[in-house]
Amino acid sequence: MGRTSDAKEKIISAAESLIELHGYSALGVAEICKSAGVPKGSFYHFFESKEALALAVIDQHWAVECRGWTGVLNSDAEPLERLRQLFQLTEAAQRTSQKNCGTVSGCMFGNLTLEMSNQTEAIRARLQGIFDAQVDMVDSLIGEARERGEVIVSDTHQAARSIVAQLEGQVLFAKLYNNTSLADALWTNALSLLGARAPQMAAEA
Amino acid sequence: MGRTSDAKEKIISAAESLIELHGYSALGVAEICKSAGVPKGSFYHFFESKEALALAVIDQHWAVECRGWTGVLNSDAEPLERLRQLFQLTEAAQRTSQKNCGTVSGCMFGNLTLEMSNQTEAIRARLQGIFDAQVDMVDSLIGEARERGEVIVSDTHQAARSIVAQLEGQVLFAKLYNNTSLADALWTNALSLLGARAPQMAAEA
Repeated sequence: MGRTSDAKEKIISAAESLIELHGYSALGVAEICKSAGVPKGSFYHFFESKEALALAVIDQHWAVECRGWTGVLNSDAEPLERLRQLFQLTEAAQRTSQKNCGTVSGCMFGNLTLEMSNQTEAIRARLQGIFDAQVDMVDSLIGEARERGEVIVSDTHQAARSIVAQLEGQVLFAKLYNNTSLADALWTNALSLLGARAPQMAAEA
Repeated sequence: MGRTSDAKEKIISAAESLIELHGYSALGVAEICKSAGVPKGSFYHFFESKEALALAVIDQHWAVECRGWTGVLNSDAEPLERLRQLFQLTEAAQRTSQKNCGTVSGCMFGNLTLEMSNQTEAIRARLQGIFDAQVDMVDSLIGEARERGEVIVSDTHQAARSIVAQLEGQVLFAKLYNNTSLADALWTNALSLLGARAPQMAAEA
């Protein structure tokens, strides 16, 4: 049992690294198994298809990233300060990817959205769920900031969507230019998008 | 000569449609030639590699899109109104892709950035050039609006970059949710990002 479980985890972990480097389409089952160090035959014991594996990779990647988001967004810090920390977390993740992969590899969910969401409905639905969750988390934080009179926003959900969209756009540029300096732009733009009343105070918090 | 030129154009055009639908990695030379209706042998007469073809596709796609951007951004309308028209053009392009491909296919340059920019330096460089050009065009427009006292921006280049990033992020959502309603969010957010003084007036222009 221990071994079986190990093999499945090794496949998911190898696929996660390969998808981060090369995307989904370029990926072959033989390459995944070689990288995972498991016999090729074992793949279909655990996954009925490459798509099923991709869904498992997405779930695992989000489980880890969601812990990071939750840790930052549910802390005791003031709402806007938590948002700033989320952007710092995003920049740190891109620095890690640059270190591990040689160049910035971007956001796996953004990458797969543009590569795959118009090709498989199962992957589209899973990615929608993740971005829905991200927007909801930011929405809740904006609601808190609004109650404190720190932002001027009529539709917190729309504002949260715009902040996540800006994050994805800036991560796209980070990947394109292999440059991880994105937290400052995200922070400045979020304050503008939120009509934040006291950015200086929040920045110094 | 006429025929030769035709075959090359047919290959580029077929590849453009296939890349829009399935991305770059999933694409095979045989599939391209079949779709173009040209013999497989002719491919390497025109292109030394799939990458060389991708560069030709990117160039052709930008040649067309750039005409659209230039037409809108260099018109006689007021600067912010031209920006609003750029967002409407973006939404219209996504509606066309939804009609032609069945679902929204997104921005080819954003798609290829996330799929390919960390894998081939030639494609990365070409995409950087295109996004540089887009940012420069928006930068110039913001400069005009600033001279007219319509926006409050200290760094027009940074602001232009944020507007293009927001555009890519909203197009990503358009693809993910197969929903083309993005011009309004882009316009509202651009006004916030630019600290635009008179959004109502501009919107009614």
